[in-house]
Amino acid sequence: MTTVPSEALRGRPVAPSTGALTPVGLTDVTITGGFWARMQELNATAIIDHAEHWMEKVGWIGNFDAAVEGRLPQDRRGREFSDSDVYKLMEAMAWEIGRTGDADLEHRFNDLVARIQPVQEPDGYLNTMFGRPGQQPRYSDFEWGHELYCFGHLIQAGVARARTHGHDTFVDIALRAADHVCDVFGPGGKEMVCGHPEIETALAELGRHTGERRYLDQARLFLERRGQGLLAEIDFGPEYFQDDVPVREAEVLRGHAVRALYLASGAIDVATETGDPDLLEAVRAQVSRTVASRTYLTGGMGAHHEGESFGQDYELPSDRAYSETCAGVAAVQTAHRLLLADGAAEHADLVERVLYNVVSASPAEDGKAFYYTNTLHQREPGTEPAQDEPSPRAASSLRAPWFAVSCCPTNVARTLSSLGAYVATTDDDGLQLHQYAAGHVRAGVAGGEVEVDVETRYPDDGLVRVRVAATPPGPWTLSLRVPGWAPGAVLRSGGEERDVAPGYASVHREWAVGDVVELEIPLAARWTWPHPEIDALRGQVAVERGPVVYCLESVDLGADVAAAEVVVREAPHDDGTTVRVPVRVRERVGAAWPYRAEPADQAADDVRDVALVPYHRWANRGPSTMRVWMPVAR
Amino acid sequence: MTTVPSEALRGRPVAPSTGALTPVGLTDVTITGGFWARMQELNATAIIDHAEHWMEKVGWIGNFDAAVEGRLPQDRRGREFSDSDVYKLMEAMAWEIGRTGDADLEHRFNDLVARIQPVQEPDGYLNTMFGRPGQQPRYSDFEWGHELYCFGHLIQAGVARARTHGHDTFVDIALRAADHVCDVFGPGGKEMVCGHPEIETALAELGRHTGERRYLDQARLFLERRGQGLLAEIDFGPEYFQDDVPVREAEVLRGHAVRALYLASGAIDVATETGDPDLLEAVRAQVSRTVASRTYLTGGMGAHHEGESFGQDYELPSDRAYSETCAGVAAVQTAHRLLLADGAAEHADLVERVLYNVVSASPAEDGKAFYYTNTLHQREPGTEPAQDEPSPRAASSLRAPWFAVSCCPTNVARTLSSLGAYVATTDDDGLQLHQYAAGHVRAGVAGGEVEVDVETRYPDDGLVRVRVAATPPGPWTLSLRVPGWAPGAVLRSGGEERDVAPGYASVHREWAVGDVVELEIPLAARWTWPHPEIDALRGQVAVERGPVVYCLESVDLGADVAAAEVVVREAPHDDGTTVRVPVRVRERVGAAWPYRAEPADQAADDVRDVALVPYHRWANRGPSTMRVWMPVAR
Repeated sequence: MTTVPSEALRGRPVAPSTGALTPVGLTDVTITGGFWARMQELNATAIIDHAEHWMEKVGWIGNFDAAVEGRLPQDRRGREFSDSDVYKLMEAMAWEIGRTGDADLEHRFNDLVARIQPVQEPDGYLNTMFGRPGQQPRYSDFEWGHELYCFGHLIQAGVARARTHGHDTFVDIALRAADHVCDVFGPGGKEMVCGHPEIETALAELGRHTGERRYLDQARLFLERRGQGLLAEIDFGPEYFQDDVPVREAEVLRGHAVRALYLASGAIDVATETGDPDLLEAVRAQVSRTVASRTYLTGGMGAHHEGESFGQDYELPSDRAYSETCAGVAAVQTAHRLLLADGAAEHADLVERVLYNVVSASPAEDGKAFYYTNTLHQREPGTEPAQDEPSPRAASSLRAPWFAVSCCPTNVARTLSSLGAYVATTDDDGLQLHQYAAGHVRAGVAGGEVEVDVETRYPDDGLVRVRVAATPPGPWTLSLRVPGWAPGAVLRSGGEERDVAPGYASVHREWAVGDVVELEIPLAARWTWPHPEIDALRGQVAVERGPVVYCLESVDLGADVAAAEVVVREAPHDDGTTVRVPVRVRERVGAAWPYRAEPADQAADDVRDVALVPYHRWANRGPSTMRVWMPVAR
Repeated sequence: MTTVPSEALRGRPVAPSTGALTPVGLTDVTITGGFWARMQELNATAIIDHAEHWMEKVGWIGNFDAAVEGRLPQDRRGREFSDSDVYKLMEAMAWEIGRTGDADLEHRFNDLVARIQPVQEPDGYLNTMFGRPGQQPRYSDFEWGHELYCFGHLIQAGVARARTHGHDTFVDIALRAADHVCDVFGPGGKEMVCGHPEIETALAELGRHTGERRYLDQARLFLERRGQGLLAEIDFGPEYFQDDVPVREAEVLRGHAVRALYLASGAIDVATETGDPDLLEAVRAQVSRTVASRTYLTGGMGAHHEGESFGQDYELPSDRAYSETCAGVAAVQTAHRLLLADGAAEHADLVERVLYNVVSASPAEDGKAFYYTNTLHQREPGTEPAQDEPSPRAASSLRAPWFAVSCCPTNVARTLSSLGAYVATTDDDGLQLHQYAAGHVRAGVAGGEVEVDVETRYPDDGLVRVRVAATPPGPWTLSLRVPGWAPGAVLRSGGEERDVAPGYASVHREWAVGDVVELEIPLAARWTWPHPEIDALRGQVAVERGPVVYCLESVDLGADVAAAEVVVREAPHDDGTTVRVPVRVRERVGAAWPYRAEPADQAADDVRDVALVPYHRWANRGPSTMRVWMPVAR
């Protein structure tokens, strides 16, 4: 870690050396109020502690102690990838320490480092599951072993530490691991890839941070090797781990959703750093088709429980939506990288949608239980998951404290602690605001350092007020994202007001401290209709308010949502606090055979206004049934 | 096998000692023409040979030779349950020999017996996968080992042989296996059940056949032990193998569909033989709710690929229909047993629906390729499956010659060879015809032996003519099933004509040879609509003609079926040969985001008549897209 650039400590999860936009790191963005401040507070006071507590309780952290004390394999706990969850927690801690300087957390972080460090072997290898007497040998199971995946999360955590604190013991562990990976898998080494992509994006980022070309080359090697059939056959088929087609030849994301999205992120990183516009365009087109035909209204991805995978185009069943929380986290990473690469607002739209409706839906209001999958239709009221032991991963009827495969809570934690990094970027011309939260942004533009204060109650209210707090002399451009769902937005600046279309609304001028720009985003609740080829949604309608997807929950209906049909004659009723829609409750009639000679009868005439709740807040009031897409009364 | 009743050789797969109806065995029913004769011919000339050929090719039969020659475990081929497929083939052969007396098949059957016999151990144990040095010990994996499941199929094949040929070496092997199972798992023995039900119904039938109470008691023991949590935890949860709730306490079929249906069959057998009306009623109610809310229009069962399992009530996605062929075979077995127990026509309706639309859909027209799953909506044209090696089991885009898990072809074979057994029953009062095919039925009624000839082109034509060919003196009742979908049926007898409602239309009289009863079933093509709670089918309609479900295939549309909307103003066009419906082909418009502020546009005005094909005949003309349920044009 000899060449740390001066910008290195600004807390950027992703720092491309080139591209349309330059990210503003989380140490330069302070979120002070509103939705995202509350989520960051929940993360700081509950989620991180909860994840650490559970990983001690179930022994995943203890695996490192067991390694040091020679108690492996007999005392090994958890699945083959459990080390990675400890690293994801540490990444969350690293961002959080960078964001808040929390001394207690710094202490706990260093405690973890002290327990992990002695497990690293002289050649840099580090894994509690493989290589000891009685364990499987190192690198004997690329399909399911997850060794390179674990290294990837270790390296990402190392980069987070390096970018918020600077070089230390933990960063050194990560560097030694990366060197080991390059030694073993570099040119002339093992011609193999990991069944779970992750190492690619991690090595690319470490290469960006250190300036070490070797890491980037290794990331590119892993990427180019994929799709050549190097991995053995598995029941799910090669598309499960994207080994069916070379990355640059694929047309759409497919197979296991998290794997596909991590791989896409790595491919964007490699394409950006190595100047490979064809690869970048291939991945951009894959993501574009995926968003157009394989993405839920929430931004969730993954339509099959089997293989946790994408379905085919327009195959998006609400009741079997897998929409794994981690796929949401991964989609944010992919879309953020595309935004930095090409500057198109659609990527920031997706980041926003996924943050509000997938990532935020996972944790319970107390931050002590999580969704692993995020269904859009709950048919049966859930039963309370086990409180004292891990739950099966895809049991999503109610949020569970922990899972046997518990990638999601730590992924939520590292995303929430680094939220600031998604807010703003710069380019040669000025500053862009992509996500709206009350707070403060500091960034360098061509002429010098800029600071702005953002005042807003978004997404409760659509007014975003940006006040210049510091500015260099000379003109620069302030750009504000107008979400794709918000035609009719208005921009006010310098006493003028103009309509602004979705995309970026920009003001180019010389600025003075105190100058104000206001963006007014219309976000009254609206009906949303599905593409006609989504069979699962035919005859149904949803309600959105701003970036927030709403849902009908049985707690509010006073009946099972299976009986509900919504009447669509005027806009949903929105008093600024609560969204209500007129609902008919159908009499539920069974039949010995569910197919018949006549269409279903008209529903009863009894129509009443029923409150909807933001999807991310559902199932916080006990077991219920729920649906995002509601049948339309004829 | 000391006490073989005189009725024993009449070829009955199921022979309860009590119940509403007594089955007429397949040796007393000759199917001479029409759909079922063609299917039996396909089975006799192609399917059985094909299955035998493949099981030699992939070494599943060779496993028995390898056992004898001491080449196990190193030469073991196939999955842990592959022995059972050899037994299912032998069951098919046994029924076929009973039906046709085919000498070549008798020779091949005995060859197989000669290869299997020496593998049976002195205590009756017989399995090529377990118990030898280097193999897992016997009974060390009840969750996935399938040992009792294999014994179940061996015993069922033995019963088939005993009922078509009488006691021989193979029947003796089955008896020794059954004795072994009772020795090991009887009172005071291993308190365990098999992860895959099947032994229950097999032992019950063997008990019926031999009069040995011990087999029936053992079946009951296995049944009562299930649902107590004796099996270890698996990822799919205990409902996968119905170990979540005791059989008599369950409310609906759930978990793995084949397992659930085999268990239900065993429970009906046990309830019937032990005089347990509560158990019978419990299973009847479970099946009833399953038919009402967890069954596809085809009669197919199983809505999840994950776990090959039932979904929740009304969760019946067309595009992810699993509808395993074997679940169809199992549903026929369950419904037939309920029919014998309570005589309700709805069970025979289900048998008919499943036979036409699931069991018959599996084999290709040449009998050399099969569907394992039976989707109701094919979104992407399939690619040709491997011709020289087994395919993955759930790849259903085109029929495959063989599967790595290949339960379906042999299950189809044993069902087709025993089809005759589903045609007729008797009771104290007379003869009932449940399924219609041209042929001859011989049966005993109270007064003596009855014979009838059936002339019909059903299901191409709705006229069923029954002519009395032999009759005892004195009155008896002839009952003909009027399918549930056929209001408006007419019965003609003795110069009189009357309307008959769904259920059984009966004529009670003294009969003379030559007397004719005609049932006219209206079967012009009709629209069929879904229950309003089946979200996956909202806004869609299907077409049925008689018991046959139709579908729209891209080969006939000349376009991807994704673009089709059907115009429902009059009945489907049915000229007696081809069914056509008016279809609009929508212009297919993509969008960057598949959700929008307005409902989908009206389709273009171009409407044309397009031919539909019987669902069981689809995908015989190369890769295509297909849908059973078609969107209705607004």
